[in-house]
Amino acid sequence: MAGAERRIAFRVEEGPDSTVVCFELEGPISPGDLRAIRPPRVDPKKGVILSGRGPIWLYAFLAHHYHPTRWIAIFDPRLGAVVVESHDPGKRVGDVIGMGARDPGG
Amino acid sequence: MAGAERRIAFRVEEGPDSTVVCFELEGPISPGDLRAIRPPRVDPKKGVILSGRGPIWLYAFLAHHYHPTRWIAIFDPRLGAVVVESHDPGKRVGDVIGMGARDPGG
Repeated sequence: MAGAERRIAFRVEEGPDSTVVCFELEGPISPGDLRAIRPPRVDPKKGVILSGRGPIWLYAFLAHHYHPTRWIAIFDPRLGAVVVESHDPGKRVGDVIGMGARDPGG
Repeated sequence: MAGAERRIAFRVEEGPDSTVVCFELEGPISPGDLRAIRPPRVDPKKGVILSGRGPIWLYAFLAHHYHPTRWIAIFDPRLGAVVVESHDPGKRVGDVIGMGARDPGG
């Protein structure tokens, strides 16, 4: 578990309405590492877009962590960012947000 | 969006402390389908283990849906069920629950 902070690197990109939180695993991650991960702080008045290559349980952990934010979307390279939960009347679950120049894979 | 209920089939297996919610996609799923999905009801006093082959955004949607339950774990075929959020003092994030005979892939 020790050193989990070093095995996952976060990068944050601020947009007007959302923060893209990209993660990169620098080595194998194990479930116990979740207890040591400190995801970056974001402005809860914006949405959060999660992006990175990692196990589903890491994504579920991160989505739960950012639960208080305005909305949460998961970046799917084939589609764009898919909204999975929202406290914003203007953003519905199932909406797809085009990433354009902010495409984490671009 | 119409017909999403038919494109995702749920199966529920009750255990003493948890409900395994398995899903199976019977065709391609699109983000808008999330708005029509009605996940099965579970006993919120138990944990929920999510299992199935599907996109990360479907998992994130389901994990959020079951947020009020005692704890949530994601079944990883290589590991077991990984706890990603918990309101149960006896179950920590990062715990791995062996599935034994209840292994959804078994």
